[in-house]
Amino acid sequence: MSRPSPRSRSEFRYFLPIDTRWMDNDVYGHVNNVTYYSYFDTAVNRYLVEAGALDIAASPVIGLVVETGCQYFSSVAFPDRIEAAVRVARLGNSSVRYELGIFRAGEPLSAAHGHFVHVYVDRASRRPVSLPAALRRALEPLAAEDGGR
Amino acid sequence: MSRPSPRSRSEFRYFLPIDTRWMDNDVYGHVNNVTYYSYFDTAVNRYLVEAGALDIAASPVIGLVVETGCQYFSSVAFPDRIEAAVRVARLGNSSVRYELGIFRAGEPLSAAHGHFVHVYVDRASRRPVSLPAALRRALEPLAAEDGGR
Amino acid sequence: MSRPSPRSRSEFRYFLPIDTRWMDNDVYGHVNNVTYYSYFDTAVNRYLVEAGALDIAASPVIGLVVETGCQYFSSVAFPDRIEAAVRVARLGNSSVRYELGIFRAGEPLSAAHGHFVHVYVDRASRRPVSLPAALRRALEPLAAEDGGR
Amino acid sequence: MSRPSPRSRSEFRYFLPIDTRWMDNDVYGHVNNVTYYSYFDTAVNRYLVEAGALDIAASPVIGLVVETGCQYFSSVAFPDRIEAAVRVARLGNSSVRYELGIFRAGEPLSAAHGHFVHVYVDRASRRPVSLPAALRRALEPLAAEDGGR
Repeated sequence: MSRPSPRSRSEFRYFLPIDTRWMDNDVYGHVNNVTYYSYFDTAVNRYLVEAGALDIAASPVIGLVVETGCQYFSSVAFPDRIEAAVRVARLGNSSVRYELGIFRAGEPLSAAHGHFVHVYVDRASRRPVSLPAALRRALEPLAAEDGGR
Repeated sequence: MSRPSPRSRSEFRYFLPIDTRWMDNDVYGHVNNVTYYSYFDTAVNRYLVEAGALDIAASPVIGLVVETGCQYFSSVAFPDRIEAAVRVARLGNSSVRYELGIFRAGEPLSAAHGHFVHVYVDRASRRPVSLPAALRRALEPLAAEDGGR
Repeated sequence: MSRPSPRSRSEFRYFLPIDTRWMDNDVYGHVNNVTYYSYFDTAVNRYLVEAGALDIAASPVIGLVVETGCQYFSSVAFPDRIEAAVRVARLGNSSVRYELGIFRAGEPLSAAHGHFVHVYVDRASRRPVSLPAALRRALEPLAAEDGGR
Repeated sequence: MSRPSPRSRSEFRYFLPIDTRWMDNDVYGHVNNVTYYSYFDTAVNRYLVEAGALDIAASPVIGLVVETGCQYFSSVAFPDRIEAAVRVARLGNSSVRYELGIFRAGEPLSAAHGHFVHVYVDRASRRPVSLPAALRRALEPLAAEDGGR
């Protein structure tokens, strides 16, 4: 396995500015490893809501998270302003793999990056369904040309 | 006791835009009551850092929170953009009382408002100290003319 | 206004042990003021679920929080084990006022205490309703004889 | 790559009961994917503190998280009581790889499992150091015989 390394902004398609919060810092004075995943959740779901592909209260199908991961290269801390960067690495029949980077404002390389995988299910039965066409259309602009890595 | 009512923007002196996060919503689909206090913490501490009155890692005196409170009038929800509004209602010898409002973008009246009281202590001994002069200067522009209410 | 002081365990009727978490500590090394409110939420709702008075997913009426407050006397920190103590100070027609204390294991006086007020509403319309009879029965054992203070 | 599957309790060496909190549930009514990582953090650090291998405020070397990951098989929800299970999959010169499982009370297979990797650094300089002998001794009982998988 090759050693992980930071990624550049050009690998991502959507950037959401996020302001860190006081509580994001843990006792060691930097953003806790857990909190990066809340940035991921926020960036993906905000994109979906703004693209009209998700109505949190009413969409008949919803994305459940089945896998997440993150690698951390350098720390960020409140009150930094950061950006969460998103690309779609794989659009499957009922699942989507997102890859995400966390960048400090103005920095070319990611402070951390990770991934998360949504499986789409019927809201009531929680059984997998095919990705709705509106969702697929909303995500295509985020797809990396090389299919991710 | 009179029934509480929303406040207007003119009662506040500093406004910090805050983007809600996916995790701010609870199971009832709106921002959980707890999360408002993280907006308060973030607005006050960010103001202090930007005004040069707080170095989180190194300031020899720090503010400990001794009292907080909040009243909720209407709900906010992810992915709303909100503003946390701040004024200083009382500058004591070793304490500061902040009053805060949460406003949805573009709305004239607060969705919620509250207060929190910092007592300044020596970082090591945790004993109360007088407010540092730099902090007092930083806070004076936030003081309401009428001393709060 | 009299100066607030810690409360004793005898003022409360229900005690829920809570284990602090790594993320509860903030950069100053103790549980952040915000987190106490998540202990309050957890203690009240857990009591209601266990008493059969709340089905989070399906109850046709739900409690919305309209006011909260907390006073902090001494700090708690991860990995402390604490107890959240609850009493009902007022059972109104459509609202309930809870008072809560946070006690370190084995300590007679509260490290912090506060209150929160639920107004019961119809889940769909979000309009106030009378407290359901099952809820009222579940809460009566938590009512302080003196009606709170 | 083989499809991931739940793990059994026998793969782990340390079990920490954790009570879910109201705020752990997200808008879909189950514990949010982010929150599992706070269970991981809590289980590992609590073990280290109780084993005498970590003094959060004073240890001259601290563990920084460089990688985390989690796979989710079935949901948990407030007010469930769960257990976070831990084993050490690799004890390196300056790093430790933990593997963790989340089990619902009484269930033989994990609802989720994941890993996280600590690199030990000098608290002040944040440069990697060899694992302290006391830490190594504290972790050996958690090491899986087969070196993890």
